[in-house]
Amino acid sequence: MVIASAPGKVILFGEHAVVYGKPAIAAAITKRIYVKSRRIDSGIQIFSEDKTESSIEYVKHAIELVIGTKRMKKQGIDVTIDSELPVGGGLGSSAALSVATIKSVSTLLGVDLGKEEIARLGREVESKVQGASSGIDPFVSTYGGAIYYRDGRFDRQQINPLSIVIGYTGSPSSTKNMISNVSHLREKYPKIIDHIFDVIGDISERAKIILDASNRRFETRKSKICDESGDLNENELGDLMNLNNGLLEALGVSSFSLSNLVNASLLAGALGAKITGAGGGGCIFALSSGREKEVSTAIKMAGGVPIPVEISFDGVRLEPNSRKNII
Amino acid sequence: MVIASAPGKVILFGEHAVVYGKPAIAAAITKRIYVKSRRIDSGIQIFSEDKTESSIEYVKHAIELVIGTKRMKKQGIDVTIDSELPVGGGLGSSAALSVATIKSVSTLLGVDLGKEEIARLGREVESKVQGASSGIDPFVSTYGGAIYYRDGRFDRQQINPLSIVIGYTGSPSSTKNMISNVSHLREKYPKIIDHIFDVIGDISERAKIILDASNRRFETRKSKICDESGDLNENELGDLMNLNNGLLEALGVSSFSLSNLVNASLLAGALGAKITGAGGGGCIFALSSGREKEVSTAIKMAGGVPIPVEISFDGVRLEPNSRKNII
Repeated sequence: MVIASAPGKVILFGEHAVVYGKPAIAAAITKRIYVKSRRIDSGIQIFSEDKTESSIEYVKHAIELVIGTKRMKKQGIDVTIDSELPVGGGLGSSAALSVATIKSVSTLLGVDLGKEEIARLGREVESKVQGASSGIDPFVSTYGGAIYYRDGRFDRQQINPLSIVIGYTGSPSSTKNMISNVSHLREKYPKIIDHIFDVIGDISERAKIILDASNRRFETRKSKICDESGDLNENELGDLMNLNNGLLEALGVSSFSLSNLVNASLLAGALGAKITGAGGGGCIFALSSGREKEVSTAIKMAGGVPIPVEISFDGVRLEPNSRKNII
Repeated sequence: MVIASAPGKVILFGEHAVVYGKPAIAAAITKRIYVKSRRIDSGIQIFSEDKTESSIEYVKHAIELVIGTKRMKKQGIDVTIDSELPVGGGLGSSAALSVATIKSVSTLLGVDLGKEEIARLGREVESKVQGASSGIDPFVSTYGGAIYYRDGRFDRQQINPLSIVIGYTGSPSSTKNMISNVSHLREKYPKIIDHIFDVIGDISERAKIILDASNRRFETRKSKICDESGDLNENELGDLMNLNNGLLEALGVSSFSLSNLVNASLLAGALGAKITGAGGGGCIFALSSGREKEVSTAIKMAGGVPIPVEISFDGVRLEPNSRKNII
């Protein structure tokens, strides 16, 4: 028996604009999907509390790809899934599931896969199930930390620990619809919308500079050479989140619930709050900076589900067999 | 005794960006301020239900300027104000008050002022009380209809009748604070903020094109040459309002209440909804297009005061002495 897990993610900056060649920054979060696999006589058995058709598809394709890498004979495998991520919430649950399954099953079968290979296969699973994948989610889920993505190229992004409260609207994010709506809006108002994408690109670039600089400050603090506060930097990140969120509002990918959760978080003292992912539903996240409780309460009162998290510096990993939260 | 009235206004597109040289479009609305003036033995008496210091200042300066134009001796004048506009709601109440007072008092004293002169004096009153005035509000209030403003130049803007529901948050808009906040944000993120102003400018230009075209269609329909519907045009105006509103959100001039009223209006079927004026409080307006009742109810349920209006094609005007709604 092997248990592996992989983290979900938030898009910190740049969703939608990324589809049109602008940069985006995503980060792994400390909510994970756990996949336990063990050999059985024959066939594939999948057990998940979330019994959606699609989560079964991701697992099946992941197993097939792992078996395919070594041209093994068909194996009997039983897979149990335990998720801390809301399905369809735009937190990368399908990538985390694919990546954790690949790690769990490959380890079970004695196939040694490096992270690069796991991320590549994770993307392949997403492509098979969804028809396409930028690869952002499987990449972040595999490596953990943050990534800077542009034009098909991934770079690991320096980032310091951040306290975040995710606010889940309870309704799924509809990536396909939202991307298609934005595409229609762009056909109608090409100059205005392309201009908005440019500004979002500027925001992601500025955020990258801040993250790069703050990480140096953070490293310095850790080594006790200097106790300079990282606050200024969090304030700027918050500003940029608010700017980015307004532009997502302009693109029409917000909703009454998303807007409510963003405003509630800000009223409760968050430094910044924005939609994360495609929008239309799904989640927002707030940079809570010491006000996790207040922000969580505000999100709850505004009808959302608060999920306090941090940046996860761990990507895909094996878990001890004793891990209790697997059924 | 002379009664004159002048309309309030909404900024349809371009607030804040207009401060940085971008175009803006404003329109007069069918809510007015009525000013009754009559001679008394000496001194100036002002009666207003709204007894704010500033509304008295506008009236005093307006009277002084009118008297100044003809180097008259000091006159005894009694002024009574009746307003349909919320004070500080960003609906141009101070300009409407100034312009209506100038018209009422000048007529009372037998001073013949043309519209150009009234608008100019109205702007002077605003400058004296507020320290500065773009002149947009007094111009719209004097002429009625819509104006296109850029770089200190006013052009009357063609516009067809539009049904609008204003949503008043109940709290005043704080023009000075909001303009200063945006200015600070721009100092911090010059590239991003200037880029956002550019996009707002694009939106105002696009709106101008739509308004110009729709008015031709409207004229054509009136003369029964063609029955082409103006709907498409209202949809586009709504799109542009939503785009502009997102950018105002990005600039940080929204508030929980404003955001709520915008979202409530859209949920109730408005084609577009946006903050009007400086933000931080004050009003939003929704393009209600046949759904005035639903939008009004939604605004009420979201805690706002709905004010259904239309574009006013009448600017400043004299009213019959029998007019009842003057105290």
